[in-house]
Formats: sequence, structure tokens, C-alpha cells
Amino acid sequence: MLVNCVAYQEGKKLADIDRKDIHLHLKQPGTFVWVALRDADAAELEEMQEEFGLHELAVEDARHGHQRPKIEEYGDSLFVVLHVVEQSGEELNVGEVDVFVGRNYVLSVRNRTERGFSEVRARCEREPELLQHGSGYVLYALMDAVVDRYFPLLDALEVQLESIEERIFAGTSPRANIEALYDLKQKLMTLKHAAGPLLEATGKLYGGRVPQICSGMGDYFRDVYDHLVRINHSIDSIREMVTTAISVNLSMITLGESEVTKRLAAYAALVAVPTMVAGVYGMNFEHMPELKWMWGYPFSVGLMVVIDAWLFWRFRKARWL
Amino acid sequence: MLVNCVAYQEGKKLADIDRKDIHLHLKQPGTFVWVALRDADAAELEEMQEEFGLHELAVEDARHGHQRPKIEEYGDSLFVVLHVVEQSGEELNVGEVDVFVGRNYVLSVRNRTERGFSEVRARCEREPELLQHGSGYVLYALMDAVVDRYFPLLDALEVQLESIEERIFAGTSPRANIEALYDLKQKLMTLKHAAGPLLEATGKLYGGRVPQICSGMGDYFRDVYDHLVRINHSIDSIREMVTTAISVNLSMITLGESEVTKRLAAYAALVAVPTMVAGVYGMNFEHMPELKWMWGYPFSVGLMVVIDAWLFWRFRKARWL
Amino acid sequence: MLVNCVAYQEGKKLADIDRKDIHLHLKQPGTFVWVALRDADAAELEEMQEEFGLHELAVEDARHGHQRPKIEEYGDSLFVVLHVVEQSGEELNVGEVDVFVGRNYVLSVRNRTERGFSEVRARCEREPELLQHGSGYVLYALMDAVVDRYFPLLDALEVQLESIEERIFAGTSPRANIEALYDLKQKLMTLKHAAGPLLEATGKLYGGRVPQICSGMGDYFRDVYDHLVRINHSIDSIREMVTTAISVNLSMITLGESEVTKRLAAYAALVAVPTMVAGVYGMNFEHMPELKWMWGYPFSVGLMVVIDAWLFWRFRKARWL
Amino acid sequence: MLVNCVAYQEGKKLADIDRKDIHLHLKQPGTFVWVALRDADAAELEEMQEEFGLHELAVEDARHGHQRPKIEEYGDSLFVVLHVVEQSGEELNVGEVDVFVGRNYVLSVRNRTERGFSEVRARCEREPELLQHGSGYVLYALMDAVVDRYFPLLDALEVQLESIEERIFAGTSPRANIEALYDLKQKLMTLKHAAGPLLEATGKLYGGRVPQICSGMGDYFRDVYDHLVRINHSIDSIREMVTTAISVNLSMITLGESEVTKRLAAYAALVAVPTMVAGVYGMNFEHMPELKWMWGYPFSVGLMVVIDAWLFWRFRKARWL
Amino acid sequence: MLVNCVAYQEGKKLADIDRKDIHLHLKQPGTFVWVALRDADAAELEEMQEEFGLHELAVEDARHGHQRPKIEEYGDSLFVVLHVVEQSGEELNVGEVDVFVGRNYVLSVRNRTERGFSEVRARCEREPELLQHGSGYVLYALMDAVVDRYFPLLDALEVQLESIEERIFAGTSPRANIEALYDLKQKLMTLKHAAGPLLEATGKLYGGRVPQICSGMGDYFRDVYDHLVRINHSIDSIREMVTTAISVNLSMITLGESEVTKRLAAYAALVAVPTMVAGVYGMNFEHMPELKWMWGYPFSVGLMVVIDAWLFWRFRKARWL
Repeated sequence: MLVNCVAYQEGKKLADIDRKDIHLHLKQPGTFVWVALRDADAAELEEMQEEFGLHELAVEDARHGHQRPKIEEYGDSLFVVLHVVEQSGEELNVGEVDVFVGRNYVLSVRNRTERGFSEVRARCEREPELLQHGSGYVLYALMDAVVDRYFPLLDALEVQLESIEERIFAGTSPRANIEALYDLKQKLMTLKHAAGPLLEATGKLYGGRVPQICSGMGDYFRDVYDHLVRINHSIDSIREMVTTAISVNLSMITLGESEVTKRLAAYAALVAVPTMVAGVYGMNFEHMPELKWMWGYPFSVGLMVVIDAWLFWRFRKARWL
Repeated sequence: MLVNCVAYQEGKKLADIDRKDIHLHLKQPGTFVWVALRDADAAELEEMQEEFGLHELAVEDARHGHQRPKIEEYGDSLFVVLHVVEQSGEELNVGEVDVFVGRNYVLSVRNRTERGFSEVRARCEREPELLQHGSGYVLYALMDAVVDRYFPLLDALEVQLESIEERIFAGTSPRANIEALYDLKQKLMTLKHAAGPLLEATGKLYGGRVPQICSGMGDYFRDVYDHLVRINHSIDSIREMVTTAISVNLSMITLGESEVTKRLAAYAALVAVPTMVAGVYGMNFEHMPELKWMWGYPFSVGLMVVIDAWLFWRFRKARWL
Repeated sequence: MLVNCVAYQEGKKLADIDRKDIHLHLKQPGTFVWVALRDADAAELEEMQEEFGLHELAVEDARHGHQRPKIEEYGDSLFVVLHVVEQSGEELNVGEVDVFVGRNYVLSVRNRTERGFSEVRARCEREPELLQHGSGYVLYALMDAVVDRYFPLLDALEVQLESIEERIFAGTSPRANIEALYDLKQKLMTLKHAAGPLLEATGKLYGGRVPQICSGMGDYFRDVYDHLVRINHSIDSIREMVTTAISVNLSMITLGESEVTKRLAAYAALVAVPTMVAGVYGMNFEHMPELKWMWGYPFSVGLMVVIDAWLFWRFRKARWL
Repeated sequence: MLVNCVAYQEGKKLADIDRKDIHLHLKQPGTFVWVALRDADAAELEEMQEEFGLHELAVEDARHGHQRPKIEEYGDSLFVVLHVVEQSGEELNVGEVDVFVGRNYVLSVRNRTERGFSEVRARCEREPELLQHGSGYVLYALMDAVVDRYFPLLDALEVQLESIEERIFAGTSPRANIEALYDLKQKLMTLKHAAGPLLEATGKLYGGRVPQICSGMGDYFRDVYDHLVRINHSIDSIREMVTTAISVNLSMITLGESEVTKRLAAYAALVAVPTMVAGVYGMNFEHMPELKWMWGYPFSVGLMVVIDAWLFWRFRKARWL
Repeated sequence: MLVNCVAYQEGKKLADIDRKDIHLHLKQPGTFVWVALRDADAAELEEMQEEFGLHELAVEDARHGHQRPKIEEYGDSLFVVLHVVEQSGEELNVGEVDVFVGRNYVLSVRNRTERGFSEVRARCEREPELLQHGSGYVLYALMDAVVDRYFPLLDALEVQLESIEERIFAGTSPRANIEALYDLKQKLMTLKHAAGPLLEATGKLYGGRVPQICSGMGDYFRDVYDHLVRINHSIDSIREMVTTAISVNLSMITLGESEVTKRLAAYAALVAVPTMVAGVYGMNFEHMPELKWMWGYPFSVGLMVVIDAWLFWRFRKARWL
């Protein structure tokens, strides 16, 4: 589905144009065309392939979808795949943005994502002195937007980890904690899949030899790279803490079991000892002086109470109860 | 066993030829011969070695089989070993395809595999403009086919992991879960053995210095490389999740044990306390007023019931029952 | 908030100057200006950006804060982000110092930190022969001060680990140990976040191609690098020991549980056996000679005592009690 | 102890020669001398050092023994240390072969090994066209033989792992499984020590700059390298599976304990409930109608049986029994 | 404290000289001075700094002590820090040797070490043809001595691990095993801190560009490097085995607990069943024929014995007892 199709000249918006007229604008010097598609079908992609002369393999990747994030050069054009990760209820939803960038065009195709990139277009149009850099700047703006959307997700995961930690040490709901930690781990893997390969790819857009389209914008792509490094570091350290938390949780469960065992044993003792005493006085010997004794019964019950009180005090002191 | 022996010229099939005539076609310019063998024996390999002038060490590897995936240059020809992994019932079956590629020939030998590569030949013949690239394109097509067959296997393993996860958190059949996780891990190792070394080797077929045979086809081999990167990433993350799942499963088992202990202890208490009461009233003291009391028996039983009811209510509240 | 604004010439302090006059001094040869801000707001940063001609992206990073430690070149100036970690009660507090360094200026902005860097300025002014190196030396002095402040924190963490170790092997307060180990791990991550990325960045300030500003000071930056390597090594080894300590603690808990189980079982036996004996002599058979026997009762109690004494001795020998 | 001392010319055996005459043959063009020693003492090594002009440090290494596998260049000669691993009963026995290779000599010293390398000499003499390559080919043949002997050991370890796996999941002999897994791990470390460093060293014998002695034999040394890669991959994956198996075994033990606990608890209940009932009817109240009832006794026993039958059925359903 | 101060010429000892005369000898060609200090204070270091013109930063490092092992170039002189690890009772004691090496001097400062390096000096003086290499050879001899002293420590740790392994599988003293494993791990970390960074640094003293002082001695420094590689490999594999041993020990503890539980349960059954039987015959029903039966009592006791015997046999068969 076509979202936008606009021609830009010298950093300024020229006009919304018809997709049929794209090739006319491509020929004009200092002009580039920025087309945005959404959940494009095979026919639309084929049409664009012809308009822009896209490489067969890149288009096929876009058609199949479910690519890993990457930046590939085909001649002097770039094919960029970005993962868009969105919170959707309790789950993380992974969409994909495929960007084809040539000297005088940008084609972005977003699939399975909720939120669009109209704000990116608006930002670009607000800064004509930067947009003069051409299609490379649009690529930067798109990547910057996608990457910046990872931060709040990460923050949410950190908050989640903190609340699990609290519950672990409070000793509450260990079963839920295990599930939550596992779920957290899975979400981290999802984010890692989005940010990890992109980090590697972005490193090739500044310093050393860079694609022609990105030249002169090294500082900007380094900035994106720097954000990705931060994100990857955070993911790795949350992952490490999750692993630690899982083993700490196991320790707490084992410890809890051990404490329960002690408590149970203490209570069992409080019951078993009177039972033993009662058993003794339930023996049928003819010659048991206590049985005939006037205060035998109170004495025996008193004995039970005294022993239990002493045991209780001992268990308390040993913190078993 | 010979499967096919065909000569191609300018990207088009010339004819099925006899293996005796191979050397005739090898001499003609713009022609290459594509021979497919299946579970070849030593004699067939020796015959081919003479026809194509294959290197002794490569042929020996093909004869022994059970090589790890690799791509080796012998002069200006290539020797490629690929693992073909096939689902066979519950198990993964690992076959091997050995491909000898020279400027004007392709010899593929598949061993211990169910499914052949006739579809690859069909695809190549449908695209004469690509097949014009010669033997390098055939190599690409074979590798692409082998690698593409890894994806459904990976998907199956992911589905398997998900069903194990569900069972873990449902707390059912922990024994089966452990076995299933171990089995999953083994299958991942099998896939890793197939895809890991191939990734490394494929990286040398594009960019920088590439073997003569593959020159001009960089974009295609990069595509295979990209698929392999995806597969390896997926394998690694499933592996990590399996490891996490094993330790999570242990936590669940320990937790389950702890819960069972509590439940048992609660029931034990419900039995032990009445036993103690009964023990007390089973003592043989002469002076126990309750014993003579008309309502002694109902009272004692009532006492037992009341204590048990109170305990039951306490245990329920503490979620031990 | 402006802390200091001083002009230096030939390594000696010229004068405290007004922020309005900065541009006057920047023009004079052999002079550099060192401005220190604290928790600077957007307006102050903008003013400085104009005075010194700072790069937009660097200023934006300083405005946002919460950057990871890094050293970035913008043309022939440097933008350096350092994490200042301070003990604040039981917690570690992470502040940030952003340093902009050009040929003839140093601008340092510290955010969310308790302790300032006046001592660094004092040290620089005490060593005019070194301060002659100009702004590069100031950068060195700042980095050296920040890095040196990591050491006492690390020492504190090592002491903490040692006290936890002692408690683990003494078998006391396992619950507190788990929490302390987890807390220790988190603090190590905080320090790692400060020192890890800085290590990597500092490695580019000596040997090979270095930024113009740092040239001729390789030995000094190598010294900082060397300190960072030490810190990172220590962090990594404490981390490894923490991981080991967590699993060792789990072993101790499991072992403790096992010992408690044995102890309980021993006590249970000491109670259960007399109960059984009493039960036997509580049977109502008419023909039980012992019941009529004069010494039946003492005998039965003696039997209980003897059995228990024997059991007690056995349990002691087996170290169950 | 001298095993062999033979001169070769143009790939063919010239004659068994006396160790005194070695220097005579070394001077003849196209000739090389191959000396094999076994458990050589210091005197023999010193003699050889003089004959061949070996480097002091290399000879010292050979004298000390217990080196790690390595390939060192001393001028234009090579000093190679290989680990020979042999199955000896249940244990792995590690011997060492030190090979000194120069342009016109090969000196191999094997220490603490059962099986010799006479078959390598035989193979070399059967292939004079390859032996023409000179001392480099002999080195290849020795390395190939040593490396090929690692494969059956690895296969044995794999078989061992499989049998342990079966026992783990069958739940039998957990104690023996733990010991077997630990033992397996140790053997893997032994093999890793033999194959790991050699892999790294062998990588320098083909491609890029290679020692003069090995030039023109790249394909052969690559073949050895390839075998070593396979071996190292196998070792690593068995190691990973052993680690997994250890944690899986722990899960099975914990699970087994949990199941035993349930079973025990069920049996305890089957005993405790009748005991409680008996206790009730053992109370000494005067007014307990059941006691006087004709069918009281059968009724009470019947009650016990019915309750136990019901419990038994419940436990069976819950799979506790 | 000054230990030695000797001038050497052409590899031979010239004379013990006074520290005041050092500068006189430094001027003579072919001469170098070797000074050894022990636990030097700031004044001594300052004096030496002036005599030899040492770099400020290097001297500062030596003054502070507690550096990590490293080799730093300052102009054409080297500053080397080595860790001397010594067994001191049950603990490892870490001392430090700081070596300043210039073209015509060697200054070694050892701190907190028991054993000196007089044997190194003796060895050097015994081999004048090697000592002719000058100060570089002295550096080699010192490094070689320090590194060789790591081997017996490693051997001791290996022996320690083996004795722990035996105790683990014998099932004795699990608590002591845990502590011993943790202690072992700590000692390995200490050794790793000494040998790890040195390995990396030593790699720069041979092959490629080496410091002037070490030129022509590549084979010697490679030998030290090779020893360090061996040490590091051994450390790593002992570490891995320690980790495995910790988890194996946990498995053994869990298993031991499980076995104890079974044993206890078996004994509990042997007591509980007779108690139940006795309870039944302790009921007070009027119509219990057995009670009046002549052989009732022997029968009931016999019943208990028979049931217990049967249970005992069953438990033995199931290996619970």
C-alpha cells in the first residue's frame, strides 16, 4: 500500500507526485524521490523494482520478509533491513522496515508494524539544510528513528527485572518469578536479534571506506552506531543479570525448602514427643505407680506441656520457628 | 551410481551425454558438463578423477565421507562439502554432498541422502541467462538449495522448544521435558555442525579475493552467506534458550518438590494431631475425669475435628493445601 | 552552573576571566581556556557551543546525558564522556563528566556528581612544565583523576566479597549471602559499564595514529590505559568469583539441608522407637507375661533408654548428630 | 634408543646407515637422513645435536619432555612437538613425539608411547614420487599418522557419552553416571591439549608465508589442518554435551528425589491413617458404644482397609505410587 | 635496600662497584651495570632514577607497587613488571619484581618476595658467551626464572584438585570439598593474574618489531612465551575442571541427600508398621478374639517381625538399605 511518494530538490519538498511520474523526477539533477510503502505486495514491489532498477536478490528478500537486520551494497545502492520492535500488550511485536537507497531515491517498505515513520519525514522537511545531503540523510533519519525506539523497550525490561528481583528476595511467588525471568530472557533475545546485527552493519557506514551515499555523513552514522553500542551493552548486562537471577532464584527456592523442612520438623517434634509420653502411660503394666497416683494425669499432661515449651523455646532460638 | 550426465552450452542444455564422452565436451569452448552421482563407490570416483583430473586428496575425502562442511581450492578448481540434514521420523539424518567444480565441469556426489537435487537442475535450466555464468552458478544453486532446506528444520526445532516451554510452566511431565530438551540440544548441535563451518567457508566466496570460478557472482554467494548467518544466529539463540530452559526446569522441579513437601507435611499434621489426642485419652491413669464423663468420647472426637478444621483453614490460607 | 573559567598561557594561569571574554583569549597564541560547568542546563551549553564552535551532535549528547563512556573525534577536537562512580551510602551513584577538548580550550561539564575536580586544576597549576602541553594534558589529568577514583570502589567490593565468603563457609545467614552476592554483581556491572568502554576508547589515544591534541603525550595516556586494564581485570575476576560463590553457596545450602534432614531423622528415630515399644506394651492381650511382671514397667522404660542410647551413639559416630 | 637410521635419495631408500656416518650423507646433494629414536637419553640427544647442528633450546625442550604441541622455526629448520594419545586400559596415556626437521634430515624422538611409526616409514617408502619432496613430506606423514590416531579415541568417547546418556534417562546408577561424565570430561581435556595447540600451529604450514621445508606441500598440510579442525569441533561439541548432560543428570536426580519423596509420603499415609483409627479406638472412655458393639472390631479394621484402599486409588491416579 | 651493584664488560663480571660510581661505568663502551634492590624505598628509587635517567611514570609505578604484569617501552628502555608467586604455608604470596632495562643497565627491584634472584646472576656469570648479549639477556634470564617458578605451583594445584576429586567421588567431607574447590579457584585466579598479562606482553618481544634491547634474542623470548602459553593452558583447563567439579559435587550432594532420604524412609517404615500393628491390638473392643487367644501376644509380635523382615528384604533389594 502506498503511503507517500514525494520529490525533494535541494533539501526542500517539491511536490507529492504520482508513482507513475517517478522516473521523470529521477532524471532531474539535485532531485530525489522518497517513496514509502506499507505491507507491500508482490505487484507493488515489482513496480518499484522497475521504476528504480532494484536488484533482484534485494527485492526477493523484501518479498519474503523475515530477514535479519543488515545493510547490503548492490553496486552504488544500498539495501537496508531494520527490525521495528513494538510493545503490544505483554508481548513484543517484531516488524520489519526494508529501505532501498540509491543516489536519487529512497524506498522504504514497512511490514507488520503499528506505528509509521511520518514523523521522520516531518523532521527531515523541517531541516532542509541537512536534507540537502540527499538520500543518505533520509537513511540516517530512518535508522535513527528505529534505533531510538529500542530505548523505551529496554527501560521497560529493566523495570521488569527490578520488580522480579524484589519479588525474589521477598520470597514471594517463586513460580511466577521463574516464568517472568524466562519471558524476560526471550524478549532480550528478540531485541538482541534486532540490535546486534545492525550494530555490526552500521559500523561500516563511517570511518574507512563507506558507501558513496553515506559519504560526508560519518558523524551522523557514528552517532547511530554509538546508540546501538549502548543498546547492545545494556542488553548484554540485563541478560547476564537474568542468568544470575535465575540461579539466585534457585538458591532461594532451595533455601526456602530447607527452611520449610526445619519448620515442619519442629512442629512434628512438638506433636511426636507428647504422643510418645502418652504412649508410655498407655502401656498396660500392672505395676505402674503413676497410674494409680492421684495427680498422675495432670502430671503427665504437664510433662508434655513442659517438654513442648522447652522444645519451642529451643526451636525459636535456633530460628527454626 | 550415475544420476545424470549433461552438457550445457551458453546456459542451455545441449544433451544428456555418455560418461565416456565427457572428455570430448570438456574441450569445447563455452561448454560445461554437470555430472550427478549418488552414493558413488570407489570405482566411479576413480573414473571421474581421471575424466576431470581431480586432486588426489579431494577424491580421498569424498571416498571416506564424513567430512565437515568446507570449501577447498585445489589450483583453480574447488572442492565443496555440504551437509544435507533431513528429518527422518523423530531423528535428524545427516547426509553429505561433495561437489567438485572446475571451469568447465561440475561433479556432485550425494551420499546417504533421501532427497535428490533434480529440482536444482530444473531451476538452472529454467534460467538460461543465469546459467550462462557457468559452473559457478551451478555451485551457487546447489549451495542455495542445501541451505534453504535447513530453515524448515530450524522452524520445527523452534516449535518443539515452544511446546516444551509450555509443558515446563504447566508443570507436567518434567522427566519427558528433560529428555526433550537434551534431544533438542543434540539436534541443534547437528545443525550447527552443518551450518557453522559452511558459514565461515562461504565468507570467502565474495568480496576480497574470490576463486576464479565464483567471480562476478558475489551478490549471489553473499545471499547464501546471509542465509547462513541467519541460520547460525537462530541456532545460537535456540541453544541459549535451551540452556536457560534446562535451568528453569530444574528450578521448577525443585519448586515442585518444595510444594509437595509442604502439602505432605500439612496432611501429616492433619493425621498426627488426632493421633496425639487419641494417645492422651488412651493413657491408663485411674484418675482421668474425662474418661468417666458421659460426653467424653464425643468431646474428644469433636476436639480432633475442631483442631483439624482449624489446621486445614490455616494451611489453605498459607497455600500449602 | 559555571564553576571556573580560567585562561592559561605557556602552562601558567593567566587569570580568571569572564565567560563573555572567552573568544578574546582563544585568539591569542599559546593560550588556552579551561571552563568547568556543573549540571549545566541547555542555555549554558548553547552559549558554550557558540563560544567554542562545538559540534551539534556532541552538544546534544551532553544535553541528554546518560551516555556510555566514549571518546569521539569531531574534526580536530575531541568529545569525551566519563562515568564518575561514587559510593553513596550502600549504593553506587553514577555521575557523568563530559569533556570537550580543542586545540585551545577545555570545557568540562560534570553532572550528578558529589565531588568536583578542583584538585585536578590545582595539580595542573602546580606542574606548569607539564601543563605546557596544553589542553591534551588537562584531558589526561581529568581522565587520570576519574580512573583513580575507581580503585577504592573496587577495593571495597573485594572486601565485601571476602566477608560474604567467610559467611558462606561459616554457614551463617544464607539468605543474606544470596542478596549480598546479587548486589555485588550489580555493582560490578555498574563499574564495568564505566571502565569497560573507556578502556577501548583510551587505547586509541596512544601508539599508532592519535588525535592531534594528544600527540606527544602517549606515555601518559598509556598509563591511564594501563590503570583501566588493571581495573577491568579486577572486575572480571571478582565477577568470576561471584559466580563461583553463588554456585558454592547453593552447594552449601543443599548440603545444609541434607545435614538438617539427617539430624531430624536421627531425632525422629529417638522418639519413634520408644513410641513403638510403648505401643507394644499398650496392646490388650490377656496373656502378656511382662504386664504382670513386677519389673515390667521399669524394664520397658529401661529398654527404651538403652535403645535410644545405642541409637544416639550410632548417630554420633556417623556424625548425624 | 636408536630405532632406525636411514639415508634416502631422490625419494628412494639408499641404505641403513650407521649413526657415525650421518654427516657423510648430509653432504651429498638430493639426499636426506631420517633417524628415529625412542625414549632417547641426554647423551643420544647430544650426539644428534652435534650431527645435525640442532638449536640448544629445541634440544633442551626435547630433553625435558612434557612440552605442549607446537611447531617452532629455528632458522630454516623446524622443531615439532606432537602428543601421541593412546588408549591404555580405561585411561588415556599421553606420549610425545619430538621431530627435528631440516632441509636434509628428519630426527624423530618418541617418548612414552606404545606404538611406533614404522608404518609411516613403510608408507613413505611405498610412495617414492611423494617422498621426493624430501624431509617436508616425512614431517607431513608423521603428523598425519599422529592426527589420524586421534579419531578412534574420539569415537570411543562419543560411544561412552551415548551409553551414559542412556543410563541417565533410564534413571539407573546416577552415582556412576556422574563419575563417568567427569572422567569423560577429563579425557576430552587431554585430547584437547593434544589437538588444540597443534591446530593453531599447523595453520602456519600452508597459505601465506610457510617455512621453506614445507613449501610446495600446502595441500597436504591443509589436509592435516582440516582433520584437526574436525577433531577440535568434535571435542568442543562433546564437551558441550557433557556439560549439558551433567546438568540434566542433576535435574534427573532432583526429580528422582522428588518422586521418591512422594512415594514415601504415600506409603506413610497408608500406615499413619490406620494408626490414627486404632488410636481412637484405643481410648479409654467408659462410654464408647462401638467398643461394646459386637462388630466393632471388624468394623474398625474394615474402616482402615476402606480408607487405605481409597488412598491407594487416589495416589495411583496422581501417579505417586 | 641494595642487594648487588655490579659492572659487566663483554659478558664478564668486572667488579662490584659502589652505587656512586654507576655513572662512570655507564659511559664505558661494551659495559653494563646490573643493580639489584630489595623492597626499595622512595629515596633509593629516586637515586636510581637520577643515575639511569628513568622515566617518571615508570618510577611512580615501581613506587606504588601492586601493578599488573606488563612490559612497557619508554623510548629505547623497557620497564617490566613481573609477579613472583610463592607458596607460603597454605596461601599463595604474591610479590613483585620491577625491572628497568636500558642499553647499558639493568635495575631490578623485588618487593615482598621471600626468595631472591642470586641464582639468576650466578647462571648469567657462568655463561659469558650468552651474557655478551648484554642487558637483554639479563632480562631474559630474570623472566625465565620468574616463569619457571610458576610450574611447581601449578603442579601443586593439580595434585590438590586430584585429591579433591577422589574425596568427591568417595562421598566424604562434602563441606571441606566445597571450601577446597573455592580456595583452588582463588589460587588459580592469582596465578592467572601473574601469567595472563605477561603472556600478552611477552608476545611482543620476538617476531615482528621488537624493542632494540631484545633484538637478536627472539628464540629465547619465544621460549619464555612458550612456557607462558603452557602455563596459561594449564590454568585454564584446571579452572574448567574446578567448575565441573563444583557442579559434580553439587550433584553428589543432592544424590547423597536422596539416598539418605530413602534410607531414612526405609527405617521409618520398619518402625511405623509394628507401631500400627501394636495400635490395632491396643484397641479396646470387647469382642476381639485375638486378645483372649493364648498365643495372641507371640502371634502379634511374630507378625511384626515377619512384616519387618519382608520389608527389610524388599529395601535391600531396591538398595535403599
